[in-house]
Amino acid sequence: MKVSIVGVTGYSGLELLRYLRQHPFVEVVSIHSSSMNKKSLETINPHLRQLISLPLEQIDPKSIMKKSDLVFLATPSGISKELALPFVEADFPVIDLSGDFRLKEIGEYETWYGQSAAPMNIIQKFDYGLAEYREKPRSKWIANPGCYASAAELSLAPLLKEDKLVLDSIIIDAKSGVSGAGKGLSHSTHFSETHDNMTLYKMNSHQHIPEIVQQLKKWTPALKAIQFSTSLIPVTRGIFLTAYAKLKQPISDEKLVQLYRAHFENSPFVRIQEVGCYPVLKQVIGSNYCDIGLAYNTQTNIVTVVTVIDNLGKGAAGQAVQNLNIFAGFDERSGLDYLPIYP
Amino acid sequence: MKVSIVGVTGYSGLELLRYLRQHPFVEVVSIHSSSMNKKSLETINPHLRQLISLPLEQIDPKSIMKKSDLVFLATPSGISKELALPFVEADFPVIDLSGDFRLKEIGEYETWYGQSAAPMNIIQKFDYGLAEYREKPRSKWIANPGCYASAAELSLAPLLKEDKLVLDSIIIDAKSGVSGAGKGLSHSTHFSETHDNMTLYKMNSHQHIPEIVQQLKKWTPALKAIQFSTSLIPVTRGIFLTAYAKLKQPISDEKLVQLYRAHFENSPFVRIQEVGCYPVLKQVIGSNYCDIGLAYNTQTNIVTVVTVIDNLGKGAAGQAVQNLNIFAGFDERSGLDYLPIYP
Amino acid sequence: MKVSIVGVTGYSGLELLRYLRQHPFVEVVSIHSSSMNKKSLETINPHLRQLISLPLEQIDPKSIMKKSDLVFLATPSGISKELALPFVEADFPVIDLSGDFRLKEIGEYETWYGQSAAPMNIIQKFDYGLAEYREKPRSKWIANPGCYASAAELSLAPLLKEDKLVLDSIIIDAKSGVSGAGKGLSHSTHFSETHDNMTLYKMNSHQHIPEIVQQLKKWTPALKAIQFSTSLIPVTRGIFLTAYAKLKQPISDEKLVQLYRAHFENSPFVRIQEVGCYPVLKQVIGSNYCDIGLAYNTQTNIVTVVTVIDNLGKGAAGQAVQNLNIFAGFDERSGLDYLPIYP
Amino acid sequence: MKVSIVGVTGYSGLELLRYLRQHPFVEVVSIHSSSMNKKSLETINPHLRQLISLPLEQIDPKSIMKKSDLVFLATPSGISKELALPFVEADFPVIDLSGDFRLKEIGEYETWYGQSAAPMNIIQKFDYGLAEYREKPRSKWIANPGCYASAAELSLAPLLKEDKLVLDSIIIDAKSGVSGAGKGLSHSTHFSETHDNMTLYKMNSHQHIPEIVQQLKKWTPALKAIQFSTSLIPVTRGIFLTAYAKLKQPISDEKLVQLYRAHFENSPFVRIQEVGCYPVLKQVIGSNYCDIGLAYNTQTNIVTVVTVIDNLGKGAAGQAVQNLNIFAGFDERSGLDYLPIYP
Repeated sequence: MKVSIVGVTGYSGLELLRYLRQHPFVEVVSIHSSSMNKKSLETINPHLRQLISLPLEQIDPKSIMKKSDLVFLATPSGISKELALPFVEADFPVIDLSGDFRLKEIGEYETWYGQSAAPMNIIQKFDYGLAEYREKPRSKWIANPGCYASAAELSLAPLLKEDKLVLDSIIIDAKSGVSGAGKGLSHSTHFSETHDNMTLYKMNSHQHIPEIVQQLKKWTPALKAIQFSTSLIPVTRGIFLTAYAKLKQPISDEKLVQLYRAHFENSPFVRIQEVGCYPVLKQVIGSNYCDIGLAYNTQTNIVTVVTVIDNLGKGAAGQAVQNLNIFAGFDERSGLDYLPIYP
Repeated sequence: MKVSIVGVTGYSGLELLRYLRQHPFVEVVSIHSSSMNKKSLETINPHLRQLISLPLEQIDPKSIMKKSDLVFLATPSGISKELALPFVEADFPVIDLSGDFRLKEIGEYETWYGQSAAPMNIIQKFDYGLAEYREKPRSKWIANPGCYASAAELSLAPLLKEDKLVLDSIIIDAKSGVSGAGKGLSHSTHFSETHDNMTLYKMNSHQHIPEIVQQLKKWTPALKAIQFSTSLIPVTRGIFLTAYAKLKQPISDEKLVQLYRAHFENSPFVRIQEVGCYPVLKQVIGSNYCDIGLAYNTQTNIVTVVTVIDNLGKGAAGQAVQNLNIFAGFDERSGLDYLPIYP
Repeated sequence: MKVSIVGVTGYSGLELLRYLRQHPFVEVVSIHSSSMNKKSLETINPHLRQLISLPLEQIDPKSIMKKSDLVFLATPSGISKELALPFVEADFPVIDLSGDFRLKEIGEYETWYGQSAAPMNIIQKFDYGLAEYREKPRSKWIANPGCYASAAELSLAPLLKEDKLVLDSIIIDAKSGVSGAGKGLSHSTHFSETHDNMTLYKMNSHQHIPEIVQQLKKWTPALKAIQFSTSLIPVTRGIFLTAYAKLKQPISDEKLVQLYRAHFENSPFVRIQEVGCYPVLKQVIGSNYCDIGLAYNTQTNIVTVVTVIDNLGKGAAGQAVQNLNIFAGFDERSGLDYLPIYP
Repeated sequence: MKVSIVGVTGYSGLELLRYLRQHPFVEVVSIHSSSMNKKSLETINPHLRQLISLPLEQIDPKSIMKKSDLVFLATPSGISKELALPFVEADFPVIDLSGDFRLKEIGEYETWYGQSAAPMNIIQKFDYGLAEYREKPRSKWIANPGCYASAAELSLAPLLKEDKLVLDSIIIDAKSGVSGAGKGLSHSTHFSETHDNMTLYKMNSHQHIPEIVQQLKKWTPALKAIQFSTSLIPVTRGIFLTAYAKLKQPISDEKLVQLYRAHFENSPFVRIQEVGCYPVLKQVIGSNYCDIGLAYNTQTNIVTVVTVIDNLGKGAAGQAVQNLNIFAGFDERSGLDYLPIYP
């Protein structure tokens, strides 16, 4: 299978390249970038020296569709909504990593992203690509989930689908590494301001909130809202998410772990920790794994779910490859079955 | 005023030394350590070279009481409970930084610290030293609060004292820098395991939980329990605490900020941020400040309180100096009125 | 004594404010910035909240000279050369932290800074302010040394002044924290690019090279050139400098340490480590100390000098305050006699 | 080909496992550890959960030789010298990652490692495994080079083999990430002591000095000694090495780069940067690459070589796999041909 990567010079694009280069059934036939086209990929990314012989090309949909079978758009929200159109119109498969095709309700995108949305008929063509919950029939257009959203949705899926939660009690305290903010320069990605620091940002206004609620409602339509906070921690990669919710009935830690293990039995990338064990951020870095630990507090009747992913792995490029595998009918693990890098 | 520091080679002891050396009304007349007595202070702490002429002495209560007016015990929980006794028996003032004299209810210490408590009649002599809420008459024996506890209690005080909260809805997600674990060697303080990592530890079992509940109950006796989590972030100093709770009545962000500002009007070390601003961890490092930001979410009816302190400042040595100032009748800011170090 | 700070919103300006606020004989009467004048100082520097009541003012030399006795220019190279002129012309004292008045030889500034120099008659009025080597008569205009230059010059002074070195053998491998690059946004100050990374920059072309050579030549006119490299390490503050040079005659480590101790006997901010001990970067952070360790290698006949400073302390604001003290006739340690912050 | 890993729970052992699991021609058939045998590998290394089905076994040479074709000893210096003996005696191939079989001169090991050496007749059987310079006939026993040594030797090889250097002018300033110190607990691997810090350690006494000199002498027997310093930087992985030496004749940067490129033409893991480009540490992390940048200083006649490797990659496990490939006749890149992880 032949694929092209648009937006290859961003962190998600580079990570796609890293995964796909070792994919047994996929060949990257072209790489594209709008911003860096004058410099070679190696000059701005010296880690790639001598390893990628492809030239960095302008974005030309026709030429891409000619040589490829599928295109990844690893471009920012607001850019993908334009770039995707010619591909969709030509009935050509797209996996988009931005937020532009995730929100299905009219007005939501405008409210949370502060700009006009893609045409709603195009948005509706896209499947929301939470890989563990893809249903048939499947679209050839996939909106890859947000990094926070992936972690949040996997954290709560079993409890919601089994109707265990007091619905208005969900609070998610999520922390992200700095690569989540991309390569752009800003005060909040400046080393001297970020190192040894921690910051809560986008208080009650992060654009992944409606995305998460939309997915949780699929499982539990009565759910109205969640409390969701996002903080920046001084690591390059990773999301560490702590979710809290009240249970309708008490449960033991053992049953809780069993519930999750049963639920994710056929999901090779979701690893449920032992009773009394909670995942550390580093145990998933460089991989597509989503590791989850669970505890029930008898005093407060609250379950705590601790979930870690690599924001560039399961939170972006890893899951995009997983979605490619599902789309193409490959084993879900193809190109992803490697050990996390540790330490 | 003359003071002695016991446990000067630990991080809290060193920070006490740093604050007290510049205190206008206090002289440190002796420093003590059990573990390091054979090496000089400078050898193990080269930052002190040529700056501290005092010898490192064994711990001899009689000699301390002879030359000092007050002793700081910057010793670990489990050690202070023995060391404090001769001082208390001799009616000599003590400010203890450990957890040994904080829990006033029988059995609590044993449950949460996993060892036998100090004699309850001694524990009862100690005031709980949350500096902003010290009441008269004051004891000459002060149990300085825990780092997490200080941040948690100040976060919620105005809302609880004004009876604004749904009591069973309090969830605190607290994060700490690694110096909170002290100088001891362990897997969880190993650089290669901690750097670029984040870990939730002591799930539902941190020893500051009963301390916080005890204090919150003073303000709202009907409160039963709180959900409280502690995670380790890869910074040396600082506590970043996010508290969530449902309100009985909706409130505007403006009123929320006003409520806190009014409440802490006479508390020079508690700084309430503007509406829409949330403190970053680094803005209090090296200082005794406790900075608080506030937001109300109309969708979930939840208030979020973001609180930052330096765990060795307001969370330990800084507050101990503040307690000394209150005890001695000095201006509360004496020896503490310096700018945080930034960046 | 009344002083003004121009460029107060940069890292060196902020550090000047931190030192001077606690100076016993100095009052900061006004603070100035060109870039941030519309926002208050507190908004962009929340660590200063409630602590600095001065307004952030435009830069107006006349108004500054009216209320102050001396002005600090904590402005970048290229800016100071303009700003300083009205003060010098009015015979008003200036301590400039930029590189604009350090290089005394015609053409040097143009070569190394890539822009036109200040008028040479103005440059000549400025003393080079390496505090430990200030000679009388002293000018009222002081060019505060560069951070690397301060560390390099103090490292080699005793060996050069005692004529111990093979002159063409000096190699300096210097490493700096990221705050040395200031607050400006660039790829090389981006957290995701700098964290967990190390980079050699300005190979053989750092603008502190001519500054160092100029000073070393004062001590040893026969010296021609030095090999000097600068790398970025993932810390916020600090310079860690390793200097190597061949000796004319073998020496023991003991004699080496004695030589340095004798040389710096009256320099309270230069602390020579014991034989066999080498300073760590953190032992000077937040302070004006310059700590030096020494070793002679009998196999290679090379002496290694390990020197650490805080680039914002002895490398900028700390030394500027020290220069103020010397200028004003205060004890050199005034406002600087505090413990480094550790850990 | 079937292999076993002894010492799999250390950082180098884990990295071997990571590389070998994706090796197309190799199967890891058993893993062994002396220290951790009671806990499962997953408990202490949660990143491996569900990915390694092999049990953690005691070290039994007979059983290993029965099921394997080669054993990796990823054990510390001092341990390997005992463990290797039964394998060597049984004529069974060994790749040893410790320092125990590298030093061929009598007395060297004792001097630099401070303990008794392995029997010299066994040491002599081992090839020094600097992969780029393996000569035939090759031994089945390979002493994998030290991390610093690998970087230092590759840095200087072309210049020494072409006789370009003034021999007594070589100075190497090497910096290492903390994983180089292994998993052991010590003050110098404690997060609060290492983070935001830099330390020079083992001044003139690092055990890789004689190893480097031994190899450089093979190329230039007249070489006597080198000046070699090792510092710890606050990153988990990586060695950043800066080598300085005087040239016999001036050279242009272009010729310098050409010289290196020609020299390493057939070495896929040594990547020479463009003229004017110097490698950053992160560009090799997670890989077996050794990236080198070069500059000649006309003022000092000194060449600077900047070399980066992953200490656990080219500095340990990566090169061990490369040595396996050479031994087994596989393409040198087998199992190693992956992109570094960036950022």
